Amino acid sequence: MKLEKGLVQVYTGNGKGKTTAALGQGLRAVGQGLKVCLIQFLKPVEVYSGEVGAVSRLGPDFHLLKFDLVHPSFARDKLEAEKKLRGELPKILQRVEEIVKSGQYDMVILDEINNLLSQGFVSLDWALQLIRNRPPQVELILTGRGAPEELIAAADLVTEMVEIKHPYQKGIKMRKGIEY
Amino acid sequence: MKLEKGLVQVYTGNGKGKTTAALGQGLRAVGQGLKVCLIQFLKPVEVYSGEVGAVSRLGPDFHLLKFDLVHPSFARDKLEAEKKLRGELPKILQRVEEIVKSGQYDMVILDEINNLLSQGFVSLDWALQLIRNRPPQVELILTGRGAPEELIAAADLVTEMVEIKHPYQKGIKMRKGIEY
Repeated sequence: MKLEKGLVQVYTGNGKGKTTAALGQGLRAVGQGLKVCLIQFLKPVEVYSGEVGAVSRLGPDFHLLKFDLVHPSFARDKLEAEKKLRGELPKILQRVEEIVKSGQYDMVILDEINNLLSQGFVSLDWALQLIRNRPPQVELILTGRGAPEELIAAADLVTEMVEIKHPYQKGIKMRKGIEY
Repeated sequence: MKLEKGLVQVYTGNGKGKTTAALGQGLRAVGQGLKVCLIQFLKPVEVYSGEVGAVSRLGPDFHLLKFDLVHPSFARDKLEAEKKLRGELPKILQRVEEIVKSGQYDMVILDEINNLLSQGFVSLDWALQLIRNRPPQVELILTGRGAPEELIAAADLVTEMVEIKHPYQKGIKMRKGIEY
């Protein structure tokens, strides 16, 4: 199956549910015969997350791509992590462009790209060009906090996940199977 | 694996991403070895959705339960649909209680239950009792528009999905692989 026309979806805001909404959207798409590529920019390869295990059970139609990157805010050595991020990003973005243009996938999810955009690690122009130059049948999904206004303007569907309540407010830490 | 303590998550609001966030949460949980039961109250059995196909690929750890119900607003004969819904709900709710209490699942997703709560088809007391009486390791996820205040008060995590932009505003209809 192919989509008649791929749209651009953005999930942003400070609430839980952005990455999971994209994951669920990918799951649904695969169930209807679409091919999905999930690109996780800021989830380090060495951290085993539930999505890694589950996606592998879905077979070759759901491809998950991770990089050896950490967001500087979560790194012990922030300067070093930022330097590495800036050094690696050009070739990663090049690869993302190739994936989107390849026509191999009907849906490409750029998980946490909004964070990289809002913090200036990835240029807005790059994202807007990716949107404009994609094959018309490719659905693009961009997640992460702080989606810039220009991205929202270029998107077809935007949901803001607003945090009403979160367990960390009660001091409950990240839970395996839930947050990762 | 078992959760140390199951919490209650609520995804509400008018934006896209509530059911998909729950689906993605279920996917992630299964990947970490949790057992998930997804109960879709208002998605008729005869409508093949992407989640049906995809979940079946995940194996027995992700169980999907649907009923032969349509929401009255989407039915041709609204009165008949409402009568059927009210007639069937008691035994469905009974079954949901059994599923939650069975200890067979670490995560139970009640998809679109909030709509039934806000419209008075399911009583708030029933939901609050389900929450209170569940085994402590069971994570409950309730999705749908219009989550009542008392439910929000009883939940540990609440995200409101706020619609900023949606393709139907441009006249684009439901898309296979995306909305279902």
